[in-house]
Amino acid sequence: MRNLLMKVNYDGTHYDGFQTQPQGNTIQDRLEQAILHLTGEALKITASGRTDAGVHAYGQPFNFITSSQIPLERWCLALNARLPQDIVVTEAKEVPLSFHSRRGAKRKTYRYTINGNRFPDPFQRRWQHHHPLKLDIMAMQQGLAHLVGTHDYTSFASRKSTKTSHVRTIYEAYMEIDRSMCRPGSDDQGVIHTYITGSGFLQHMVRIIMGTLIQVGERKYQADKVADILAACNRAAAGPTAVAKGLALWSVEYDEDNS
Amino acid sequence: MRNLLMKVNYDGTHYDGFQTQPQGNTIQDRLEQAILHLTGEALKITASGRTDAGVHAYGQPFNFITSSQIPLERWCLALNARLPQDIVVTEAKEVPLSFHSRRGAKRKTYRYTINGNRFPDPFQRRWQHHHPLKLDIMAMQQGLAHLVGTHDYTSFASRKSTKTSHVRTIYEAYMEIDRSMCRPGSDDQGVIHTYITGSGFLQHMVRIIMGTLIQVGERKYQADKVADILAACNRAAAGPTAVAKGLALWSVEYDEDNS
Repeated sequence: MRNLLMKVNYDGTHYDGFQTQPQGNTIQDRLEQAILHLTGEALKITASGRTDAGVHAYGQPFNFITSSQIPLERWCLALNARLPQDIVVTEAKEVPLSFHSRRGAKRKTYRYTINGNRFPDPFQRRWQHHHPLKLDIMAMQQGLAHLVGTHDYTSFASRKSTKTSHVRTIYEAYMEIDRSMCRPGSDDQGVIHTYITGSGFLQHMVRIIMGTLIQVGERKYQADKVADILAACNRAAAGPTAVAKGLALWSVEYDEDNS
Repeated sequence: MRNLLMKVNYDGTHYDGFQTQPQGNTIQDRLEQAILHLTGEALKITASGRTDAGVHAYGQPFNFITSSQIPLERWCLALNARLPQDIVVTEAKEVPLSFHSRRGAKRKTYRYTINGNRFPDPFQRRWQHHHPLKLDIMAMQQGLAHLVGTHDYTSFASRKSTKTSHVRTIYEAYMEIDRSMCRPGSDDQGVIHTYITGSGFLQHMVRIIMGTLIQVGERKYQADKVADILAACNRAAAGPTAVAKGLALWSVEYDEDNS
């Protein structure tokens, strides 16, 4: 028996999220079907976490115990040949049998992408939230800074969250602006990527943070109101949940070098 | 009557090219339908040139004569509201009645994109030719350099070309490598963009150039063989036609400042 850790990139547009669902249209279902087809094993994979319907991922880790003798270097190509084109396995390695890709995850980074240019980008539209109205990026960055640290993030969690504690740590959060697709002389604002790295994330947490920061960017909220929202520990205090398609799991880090 | 010059970005994946076809599934058909819906005018637009089925464009110019009184600044949003999401009009300006977007085009640039990384990119796969085999990029660049200048490009034109002369000028041609999505420590080659700027292009010209350069990259042809292929003036001498999806019209330049 071997414990294999893999990484998968996916365009989540057409899926109901990562975690298996009765209808079967999830990333996990597709991966397990590909493994079944390849090895004959009807096994369950473990991932670093869930993603919502429509959310994307770059290098999302997952692992599973297999008795298959297929050499490590063959797994990616063999699985990709059995997966739809919007799901691509990019790494496979053997890890200790005790390794668990969810429990072992120490830091996760999500990226949320806003296209602030006047017009949507037909090439990137499936993974950008198009927001052509003027955004005060400096104010958004100030608001974002209030969220770094160890806090109770109840205000930024879905009301459906079943977690007993909403205390998490955000280690780092920053925004980056890509102006490469701005039309010269236009009022295009560029493509705004927000990266948030934390110990773990509650359901909808990044999307509620982004929905709140967009309110700050539109000057409907002062930047410092984000601190008040955090302190309120009340979902009703925060802004709306930003659309799923702008969100991507960007990276997951483990202790030691078994990531 | 006004002559309006516009620019359009499109993901050509699901279309039969730019130019109108009896089945009606072209970019031109979609643009003319949107104009008809907006203004009631059943007019014909003129573009800077055709693109093949599956080819993309960034800022492709087109123009048309209209009697509509709609103010200039409203056209883009009004047309985009009537276009599918993979076609986006990004600029509209008034030009002299004599302006013709095909006849006036002085320089056109195409970009061809090869994903040389081991695995396809689920996000960019619709506009990248995936070629994970090792490519000798230096040799490809040497081969490409032989094509710059004024030449008879019969070897790089579709046999179906009906043009009386195959003499064109390539002003500039270069390759650029984006390694941002390479996995650390892997044999990923990066994403290789080839930009070719010329006075005009024959049917399939950029794709046959790229199919030939890929043969050079795979060391099936010596780089200097490209000069022999050019001199042969025979389509059979060149390599295969590279897949359409890697190709995008990148820019079109006009004399004066009416581009």
